[in-house]
Amino acid sequence: MSIENITWHDASVTRELRANLLSQKSKLLWFTGLSGSGKSTVANALDIRLNEMDKATYLLDGDNIRLGINSDLGFSIQDRNENIRRISEIGKLFVDSGLITIACFISPLKVNREMARKIIADDFIEIFVDCPLEECEKRDPKNLYKKARLGEIKDFTGISSPYEKPENPEIVVNTKEKTVDQCVDQILDYLKVGI
Amino acid sequence: MSIENITWHDASVTRELRANLLSQKSKLLWFTGLSGSGKSTVANALDIRLNEMDKATYLLDGDNIRLGINSDLGFSIQDRNENIRRISEIGKLFVDSGLITIACFISPLKVNREMARKIIADDFIEIFVDCPLEECEKRDPKNLYKKARLGEIKDFTGISSPYEKPENPEIVVNTKEKTVDQCVDQILDYLKVGI
Repeated sequence: MSIENITWHDASVTRELRANLLSQKSKLLWFTGLSGSGKSTVANALDIRLNEMDKATYLLDGDNIRLGINSDLGFSIQDRNENIRRISEIGKLFVDSGLITIACFISPLKVNREMARKIIADDFIEIFVDCPLEECEKRDPKNLYKKARLGEIKDFTGISSPYEKPENPEIVVNTKEKTVDQCVDQILDYLKVGI
Repeated sequence: MSIENITWHDASVTRELRANLLSQKSKLLWFTGLSGSGKSTVANALDIRLNEMDKATYLLDGDNIRLGINSDLGFSIQDRNENIRRISEIGKLFVDSGLITIACFISPLKVNREMARKIIADDFIEIFVDCPLEECEKRDPKNLYKKARLGEIKDFTGISSPYEKPENPEIVVNTKEKTVDQCVDQILDYLKVGI
């Protein structure tokens, strides 16, 4: 290899080339909402529908983040901030890669979601999964509210720790009033222009 | 949304579905080698070739990692370990997403590369970009060796900090003896079976 070759170090596959290959515009769809609000259900149903439409997607959630890259983080305020910061930076890489990326985290604090929006910039779409606390607690699919009420779980969002509703999310889906399919349709309607 | 709907939380797009959509098998191609060895040049040339073959790829390197998710890390031994750990975990997510992923980092220590291999498991392909130190120093495209010799850069790999050659890399490309295109051909030949 000659010195000349070293200089084409800068030639690289651009985001535009990756988008052309996949025939789609990448976005970061950030789901936020209480435990039991239906975030994961709607996010996964959306993911399935996009895959059926031949869209290349990836879903980031507690299962693949907390057990992997963020396995060194606990639940202190500092660690929760760092959790969301890293998810945002990873989401940015995935959007850059061309994939339609779904992030599904309670993310209860405005300050954290605003950090995510700042990092991801124009490609950030905040989806508030709106469901009353009473309904979430009634569903309680993992018995977490029960444990939180008994004091077995500390700092549980909605019970002993605040959830700050988004003020200007791009999309609000109401999982008490609508079915999962209706929520997915609503999100796809919004995305139609952009994707 | 009824409680029944909550239970299909588990339905999700699998790695297999993503692979089918993209018609490719994802791998993590880990480039290691001295500064100036030609890692980035070969990695980018490979990336371009794969894109031309309609393969969906993503390249992780200092530009998008050190300035983003790892911007909180310095160059202590502990931080260098954490740098490689996070890159490996991110690489694992990208491989799971279905993309052919290229990681391009000096990664001088065996212990770190072995950690990456352990995290990524069967999808890890180590590519040693082999080039004698004298040749790298002669090329010195960023004048880093010069600065390191003058003591202006501390702990510079190959000069004041060790580079441990891989013992059993899947691929060795010799950038002193071969052209960039020949190196890329060699890697594509190896991958042909797997991708």
